Amino acid sequence: MKAEILATGDEILTGAVIDSNSAYIAQKLEEAGVEVVRHGCVGDNVETIAAILKEISTRADLAVVTGGLGPTLDDITAEAAAKAAGVELVFDREAMSCIENFLKTQKREVIASNKNQAMVPKGSVCLFNFVGTAPGFVFKIGVCLFFFIPGVPYEMRRMLADGVLPWIDKLQKERSFSLVKTISTFGLAEAAVNERLVGLAEEFPGIRLGLRAKFPVIYVKLYVRDKDEDRANILLEKASESVLNKIGKCAFSTDGKSMEAVAGSFLCREKATIAIAESCTGGLISHLLTNVPGSSDYFLFSGVTYSNKAKIKILGVAEATLQKYGAVHEETAKEMADGVRRVAGATYGISTTGIAGPGGGTGEKPVGTVCIGIAAPDFVEGYRFNFQFNERLRNKKKFAITALDLLRRKFLV
Amino acid sequence: MKAEILATGDEILTGAVIDSNSAYIAQKLEEAGVEVVRHGCVGDNVETIAAILKEISTRADLAVVTGGLGPTLDDITAEAAAKAAGVELVFDREAMSCIENFLKTQKREVIASNKNQAMVPKGSVCLFNFVGTAPGFVFKIGVCLFFFIPGVPYEMRRMLADGVLPWIDKLQKERSFSLVKTISTFGLAEAAVNERLVGLAEEFPGIRLGLRAKFPVIYVKLYVRDKDEDRANILLEKASESVLNKIGKCAFSTDGKSMEAVAGSFLCREKATIAIAESCTGGLISHLLTNVPGSSDYFLFSGVTYSNKAKIKILGVAEATLQKYGAVHEETAKEMADGVRRVAGATYGISTTGIAGPGGGTGEKPVGTVCIGIAAPDFVEGYRFNFQFNERLRNKKKFAITALDLLRRKFLV
Repeated sequence: MKAEILATGDEILTGAVIDSNSAYIAQKLEEAGVEVVRHGCVGDNVETIAAILKEISTRADLAVVTGGLGPTLDDITAEAAAKAAGVELVFDREAMSCIENFLKTQKREVIASNKNQAMVPKGSVCLFNFVGTAPGFVFKIGVCLFFFIPGVPYEMRRMLADGVLPWIDKLQKERSFSLVKTISTFGLAEAAVNERLVGLAEEFPGIRLGLRAKFPVIYVKLYVRDKDEDRANILLEKASESVLNKIGKCAFSTDGKSMEAVAGSFLCREKATIAIAESCTGGLISHLLTNVPGSSDYFLFSGVTYSNKAKIKILGVAEATLQKYGAVHEETAKEMADGVRRVAGATYGISTTGIAGPGGGTGEKPVGTVCIGIAAPDFVEGYRFNFQFNERLRNKKKFAITALDLLRRKFLV
Repeated sequence: MKAEILATGDEILTGAVIDSNSAYIAQKLEEAGVEVVRHGCVGDNVETIAAILKEISTRADLAVVTGGLGPTLDDITAEAAAKAAGVELVFDREAMSCIENFLKTQKREVIASNKNQAMVPKGSVCLFNFVGTAPGFVFKIGVCLFFFIPGVPYEMRRMLADGVLPWIDKLQKERSFSLVKTISTFGLAEAAVNERLVGLAEEFPGIRLGLRAKFPVIYVKLYVRDKDEDRANILLEKASESVLNKIGKCAFSTDGKSMEAVAGSFLCREKATIAIAESCTGGLISHLLTNVPGSSDYFLFSGVTYSNKAKIKILGVAEATLQKYGAVHEETAKEMADGVRRVAGATYGISTTGIAGPGGGTGEKPVGTVCIGIAAPDFVEGYRFNFQFNERLRNKKKFAITALDLLRRKFLV
C-alpha cells in the first residue's frame, strides 16, 4: 500500500510553524508496513485543498490529512474534501455527540461554531476525538482512502493511535515486517562513509541504506522489509556486520546511540566517574553528558575555565606551564585533565583548550585549533587537532565530540 | 510570483528527520515578497523526483528544492532534474573548482564521489557553496525557475542567503520593501502571547503577525511590505511599540536576540563579569553564554557541580546548609551563586540546583523543581520554580533560560 501525507494550514505553509506531524505520521505508517511516497502541504484555501486531494486520489491507496478541522473560519478541510469528491456536506449525529461529550468533560458549552465541526462529506465515517472538539473522518475519494485528522499534535497522535492505525491494520491482509538498524559513526566525513559502503546494496539485496548527518556524527541506517521477521533480522545482522567491518573504529554504536550515551554506558558499566575541564567547549561536554538520564551516577564535576586564573586556581594548572606553553597547548591540556580528575576525585578527566572563533586565532594556532587532555589513574596524554568549520558553534561541537571520542578510543574500544 | 518548496530525502519521507528546512525557506521567501503556495516531499528516487519536478514546472514561477546534492549514491537530485527537463548531465568546471576550494580549506583530498557532485543538468548555472562540498544550481524546467540547494541546514541557509535570495530580488521588477521585526519573549506560553496580541492586525493594517517558538523562547515577528521604505519603517515601529506594551517585561529583545546574547551585551556594556554554578542545568548555561562570540571578555568560570562534594569543595557551600536544606533549596542556591562569584572574582554569580528528571523527583520536590541563586556585590537571592515538561532536555532549557531571565529582570530591565 502506498500512502501520502498532507498537512494543511497557512501557519505551516508560511513557515511560522515547523510541521512535525508529517514526520510523526510517516514513522507510524512505516512501522505499520505502509510505504509513504509523498508529503505535501497547502494553505487554508478550499480550492487549493480540493485540488491537491483530487491529485492524491488518483495516486495513493491511502492518505492521512492533518489540520483544518477546528471550529474557526479557516477550518475548511471538510468542505474541501466534499468538493473534491463532488458530494455535499451533511450533519453527522455521531460527530456531534462526540463534540458534546468532549465539551461536557471540559464543563464547556456547545457553541454555534462547534456545530460546524459536525458537518462532514456525505458518505464519510466519523473518527472520535477524545481529547479535543474536532472529530476526524474517513472518506474515499477516487481510489484513495483518506483519513482526515486534527492538526493539533496532541489530538493528532491520539486519533492516529485510536482510529487510523487500527483501521489500517485491518486493511493489511499480508503484513510485512519493517526493521531498521542504526550505526553511529564519528571521524569520517559523510562522503567518506558513503565511499566505504559502496557495493553494500548489491552485497545484501533487500537492504536499503541511508546516511543521516547530525553534525558531527554520521548515522548509517539500514532498512529492510520482509514478510518473514526472522529472515529480515538475519539479513539486517549480516549487513550490519559488514558495515562495522568497513567503518572500523569510527563506528561507536550499533543501536544509534549518541557519543555521550555511549560514554555514559561505559562509565556505568565500569562503575567509573568522570570530571571535565572545559575551556573552548564552554560547557558543551558537560551539557551533553548530563543530557543522559542517570548521568549523576558518574558525572562528578566540570570546570568551565575560560580564564588562566581559573585554570590555575580551580584546576591546579602550573603558572609556569601557562607561561611557557600558553593556554592552548597539549601540556596545558594534560595538566587541566589531570587537575580536574584530582580535584573531583574522578576516575577519568577530560580537558579542552582551544580557539572556537571567530576571533582569537593566530598564524601558529588558527581558529579551529584544539588541544585535548585525557587523564586516568596512571595515564595522562595531550592531543592537538585543527578543524576548520569557521563557525563557533560547529567548532565547539566538533571539539566536544572529539574529546569524548578520544576517551572512547583509549579506554572503550 | 508563486513559489513551491520541495524537500527530497528518504530520511524526511520516512519521518526519521523532521523537515525544518521548508519552514525556514518559506519564511525567507515570504519576507522576499514571494507567495509560497505548496510544499512537497519525496524520497531518494530518480523517477519520483523527476515526476514531481515536472508537476511543479507546470504550476509555479519558482521553486526551491533541498537535498540530494551530496556525494553519496542516494544523492540523485541533479540526475532527476536532468531527466525532468529531458537534458543530459554535464561536468561543470565552476562547480568542481567550488568543491576543490572548499576541500582545500578543510585540508581534505578530492575523492571520486566529489566529482559526481560537479555533474549538473546541461544549461544550469552553479550556485557556490562556501561551507560544504555540494554546489547548488539554478535551472529552468517548463515555466518554473528551480533553485537546487543542499539539504544540510547549515549549507542550505548559507546558499539561500548568498545565492538564491539575491537572485530572486533581481527577478522582482517592482521592488517593494519587505521588513521584519522580531521581538523575543520569555515567560508567556505561545497561546498567552497570541491572546495578548489579538486585534493587532486590525489596529495596524499592513502588518502581518507571526509567532515562532524556539523552546522556551517565543519570538513575535512583525512583517510589513510597502513600496515606501519610510512608511514601512514607521508602521513597523508603531506596531512594535504596541506589542511591547502588551507583552510587558516578558519581552527581552526588540531585534530577535537570544537571551544569552542579551545577557552578554549587558555584561559588556557594564564591563561586568559573570560566573556560573550549575547543578541540574549541567553546563547548559555556560554553553549558551559561550556560544556568543566574544564571551571570553565577561565569562570567567562555571562550575558544574553535580555532587555535594563538589558544591562544598569548589563553591564553598557550607556542609551544614546541605544537611539542613538539601541540595535542591533556595538557601543552597544562594550559597552556590555567591560562592562561585567569589571563587571566580566575578561581578555576578548565577546558580541552579534542581531535578531535571526523569528520575530523582519526590513529593515535595517533583521533577521540574529548580532553585536558582542570583548574586552580585551586596546582593544575593534564591528563587524556586516548578515546571512540568516531563522531559529532561526541556527542563534543562527552561531552567537555564529562567536563570538568565532572573539576572535580566533584576539588573537589566
